[in-house]
Amino acid sequence: MVQRVGVIGGGQLARMMIPPAVELGIEIAVLAEQEGSSARQAATLVGDYRDEATVLAFAETVDVVTFDHEHVPQPVLRALVDRGVRVHPGPHALEFAQDKLRMRERLSELGVPVPEWATVRGPDELQAFIDANGGAAVLNLPRGGYDGKGVRVVRSGADGADWFGRGDFDALLVEELVDFRRELAQLVARRPSGERAFWPVVETVQRDGVCAEVVAPAPGTEGGADRVRTVTSQIAERIAEGLDVTGVLAVELFETTDQRVLVNELAMRPHNSGHWTIDGSVTSQFEQHLRAVLDLPLGDTAVVSSWSVMINVLGGPQSEPIDARFAQAWQSYPGAKLHTYGKDARPGRKVGHVTVVGEDLDDVAYRARAAADAFDD
Amino acid sequence: MVQRVGVIGGGQLARMMIPPAVELGIEIAVLAEQEGSSARQAATLVGDYRDEATVLAFAETVDVVTFDHEHVPQPVLRALVDRGVRVHPGPHALEFAQDKLRMRERLSELGVPVPEWATVRGPDELQAFIDANGGAAVLNLPRGGYDGKGVRVVRSGADGADWFGRGDFDALLVEELVDFRRELAQLVARRPSGERAFWPVVETVQRDGVCAEVVAPAPGTEGGADRVRTVTSQIAERIAEGLDVTGVLAVELFETTDQRVLVNELAMRPHNSGHWTIDGSVTSQFEQHLRAVLDLPLGDTAVVSSWSVMINVLGGPQSEPIDARFAQAWQSYPGAKLHTYGKDARPGRKVGHVTVVGEDLDDVAYRARAAADAFDD
Repeated sequence: MVQRVGVIGGGQLARMMIPPAVELGIEIAVLAEQEGSSARQAATLVGDYRDEATVLAFAETVDVVTFDHEHVPQPVLRALVDRGVRVHPGPHALEFAQDKLRMRERLSELGVPVPEWATVRGPDELQAFIDANGGAAVLNLPRGGYDGKGVRVVRSGADGADWFGRGDFDALLVEELVDFRRELAQLVARRPSGERAFWPVVETVQRDGVCAEVVAPAPGTEGGADRVRTVTSQIAERIAEGLDVTGVLAVELFETTDQRVLVNELAMRPHNSGHWTIDGSVTSQFEQHLRAVLDLPLGDTAVVSSWSVMINVLGGPQSEPIDARFAQAWQSYPGAKLHTYGKDARPGRKVGHVTVVGEDLDDVAYRARAAADAFDD
Repeated sequence: MVQRVGVIGGGQLARMMIPPAVELGIEIAVLAEQEGSSARQAATLVGDYRDEATVLAFAETVDVVTFDHEHVPQPVLRALVDRGVRVHPGPHALEFAQDKLRMRERLSELGVPVPEWATVRGPDELQAFIDANGGAAVLNLPRGGYDGKGVRVVRSGADGADWFGRGDFDALLVEELVDFRRELAQLVARRPSGERAFWPVVETVQRDGVCAEVVAPAPGTEGGADRVRTVTSQIAERIAEGLDVTGVLAVELFETTDQRVLVNELAMRPHNSGHWTIDGSVTSQFEQHLRAVLDLPLGDTAVVSSWSVMINVLGGPQSEPIDARFAQAWQSYPGAKLHTYGKDARPGRKVGHVTVVGEDLDDVAYRARAAADAFDD
């Protein structure tokens, strides 16, 4: 019997599970938010992932349920589990990806290094934290934020006043403004039966709160006995075990100017920082996620070339159709792997990515950036 | 507008075009022979590719027509062209892949090195050829043969008697029994507007007339200035140009014990000898074929690792389901890339393949063979 993986959410992460599913000989079914989603080719149902009846009906058509995003409400997830549906990652893990306060509490309990943080219930508590942490801090809505939304830098209690009492939050998360040298991401895949596989730690470059570029491995960590690599793997392992994460876990980290490695955020699904694995690793994060949620043996996470550089392609104000711009980039950079998401190119929206692999980092980075630049006016 | 490529034939070659189509942001439509074909995920129509009305109706739903096999009759192909359909490769090229006598004639005209050959109309002419060529020869039905069918070794005119007058053939092709050191395959992709891209020449190992194993590059040719590599590229270029082939062309060759390189067969589509490119080359033959038939810029054909070894997985008499055997192979060889074709595992039928890439040929070949062996009882 061909196994069928159900993915809730029709974004590019679901879309990028389609190619490895073909190779693995498994089927993908997608519950998409709307017609014409990025993963429309595999969309077997269009409906609201917040609606319990819709999600239960979808789950009946598949062998295991997994996710393109972390926004499915806990009551819906719990209803799936109560009906005996295999859900990976499970609700008990996902809650830590859905709520930053719960995540910070749990990571602190596990002894994982995180930035200084506190729960704050009003401007006075916020001001006290700022005073104790160098005059600035990062204020976070506990839930619903992504790609720089729901996060702001504050320099006084008053700066955050309008967020207190907002929505259903009775408290917010405040964190130290970390003085970091660079940002890293460590991806790990974990099967329900326990097997784990780690990709090399990568460097991520954010612009305007959105991942713009990934260099794999993170420069300086490519040697076998690198300290940072050891630390990031140990952190990811502790989180994957401690939170019982199944499937791919992405741990976003800060490497500080004073040589510490601190956890920034978690994602329990394939992640932008792992897109390079499609072209740069023996096993891509999308293939590995499918294997993991089906509890199949995990694949080799070795790199196929010494270096990979991935650049996101964002929609812009350009008048030229995206297809024509892809053809231009192909013409000039035949070694650049362009991946399209089948989305309308609204300004700032991720519509694709470019990966270049090779043996010389300078050359690889130059070609990846140049190919991505072919998309700008 | 998203471009739509129509593939006639629902076999594994059509199936393996689906993943790169997702990445490229184009659509694949497949005219399949039957329900449940290997490419069923993209099958938009089930029907007979020999029926002109069926094929014309299919062609109206796509921007360009290409093929999973070379069996579409010439009158049907001509009808497509007459209606203004973009067909790649075109009927004027495909006829040389469909008829071995026409192919030998045309290659000889082009000055491409081929084995000694003749058109024979009966046992007497066959005997004369055998007498002039060392007492043995290879007799071919001009059309309809593949994977060792329609080909036999003969040692007398009488050996071929039952094939004369068979079907609609008024003549057969006879060729010298080449004393070869090894078999090679040279793949090239060519766009309608002329751009070409060559992959490294590979060594193919046949068993019982069926491709069993491919080593890329062919050992000894990996250096930049290798003579064999130069010769095979020149031969493929001459054929692609001379026959106006568009899309991927596979040229199967003999490297003789006396250092000659002779053309054995042609395929005008992605080919078993190029499956390694999915994992071992920057641009796979399937992605390249789609780019070529759409007249988009071709991708880089460089290898991502020094060596790739591909082994076909054949259906056998095993009682265990193929899925379970894949899981076993994954367990033992996490670095082996297993590709499934979604076909019932009848004995001798190609149901998948395994590719391993790496820097050490002995290690790569060992792991590929061991992973493939996991499928045997």
